[in-house]
Amino acid sequence: MNLHLFGVEGIPEIRPGDDLGALVAGCAAPLCSGDIIVVAQKVVSKAEGRLRALSAVTVGRPARRLARRLHADPRMVQVILDESVRIVRDCHVLIVETRHGFVCANAGVDRSNVPGDDLVSLLPIDCDASADVLRSRIAQVSGMTVGVIVSDTWGRPWRLGITNFALGVSGMPALLDYRGRTDDFGMQLNASLLATADELAAAAELVMGKTGRVPAVVIRGFDIFGDQTGRGSDLIRPRELDLFR
Amino acid sequence: MNLHLFGVEGIPEIRPGDDLGALVAGCAAPLCSGDIIVVAQKVVSKAEGRLRALSAVTVGRPARRLARRLHADPRMVQVILDESVRIVRDCHVLIVETRHGFVCANAGVDRSNVPGDDLVSLLPIDCDASADVLRSRIAQVSGMTVGVIVSDTWGRPWRLGITNFALGVSGMPALLDYRGRTDDFGMQLNASLLATADELAAAAELVMGKTGRVPAVVIRGFDIFGDQTGRGSDLIRPRELDLFR
Repeated sequence: MNLHLFGVEGIPEIRPGDDLGALVAGCAAPLCSGDIIVVAQKVVSKAEGRLRALSAVTVGRPARRLARRLHADPRMVQVILDESVRIVRDCHVLIVETRHGFVCANAGVDRSNVPGDDLVSLLPIDCDASADVLRSRIAQVSGMTVGVIVSDTWGRPWRLGITNFALGVSGMPALLDYRGRTDDFGMQLNASLLATADELAAAAELVMGKTGRVPAVVIRGFDIFGDQTGRGSDLIRPRELDLFR
Repeated sequence: MNLHLFGVEGIPEIRPGDDLGALVAGCAAPLCSGDIIVVAQKVVSKAEGRLRALSAVTVGRPARRLARRLHADPRMVQVILDESVRIVRDCHVLIVETRHGFVCANAGVDRSNVPGDDLVSLLPIDCDASADVLRSRIAQVSGMTVGVIVSDTWGRPWRLGITNFALGVSGMPALLDYRGRTDDFGMQLNASLLATADELAAAAELVMGKTGRVPAVVIRGFDIFGDQTGRGSDLIRPRELDLFR
């Protein structure tokens, strides 16, 4: 199997209400059926208006206390708490569980690549729904059947550095299940549930970079379509199977 | 930037002492300077003879006790403990810190894709040194300057499914540091230390699959060479910065 990845260039600065799917489809043309399009959460959040002005945040006592201990902006901490259902760790950084069930630093609230000093971006309310909207719009504009991943960049325990993860998935599997298949010597593969959408998101980050204004990447040649579909939420480890929260 | 990934096909079953670098270089030909070659840990371990026969393992009392509680093969548990410096979790699965400092399930000890019922594979003793040996041999045979990653497939806290990680790195950076650079609006990027080698390993897994006998993948077009070099060990989060062990 050969894989080809290329960045979607020429997408303008995105504002709330912009038709992101049409912009991606236009700038990525020509697309092929079977292409997977990885879109950075930041532009999805901007198009959906998932932004908050720090100047309009009313800081409560828990946020103020936490901010003092973490040497952080209390308004930022308040926004993070508003996006969270639970704090997993609050030593040095805030690792939280978001309303979606994601466990990540700062609930995905971010000041980078947002215009001005006052606005911060939030994760989409429903990342799978965001991926659905993008996929159907891209399909409509391009005439092609594609898969869509909405990705964000997170840290990991035990490992230094951040990598991309798949938050929303549409029109393609999120996990590939090799369990029950056999290896090259006929032995059952037991632990082989592959987090394919996370790997595709990580691959796309290599092309996106962080400063190059490439908020979408096309991955061509990854043949995983057919009957299998999945959701970004499939990638969240159920709490009862999680040894680290 | 465009990225192209292709699987290295035709590599025979690897036995201890095989000249893996020459085999990879031969089957991947023609290589280009700047190519990154991701090689699965399993074939590296086989070439290095990092295998143990379960029938020859003497099981001690701690391994026996642990195996009873985990419903696991006591000989397998003994091998895992022999490869570990510390148990991080021992509920359902054994999450350990290996002698290298990696935190992963079962210390990377694995029965899949190993011939027979008795042998298990261990991680290389020094994954960066393994990558060095491969890189210089591939350079020698092909005449090209390449980067090499030795990768393995691990689970993650909070996320379902396994993905590839970079254990050994040679001739290229492991992390790309965007800290101090500015985003598209001139704002400092603070958290942007990218785990590039882990993302390259994850991308390669998409082409390797688990059952297709493609133990090496060439990644072409990722221009990260020059002065920057790194090691797989750079990707290990120092214990004092780790909130989850």
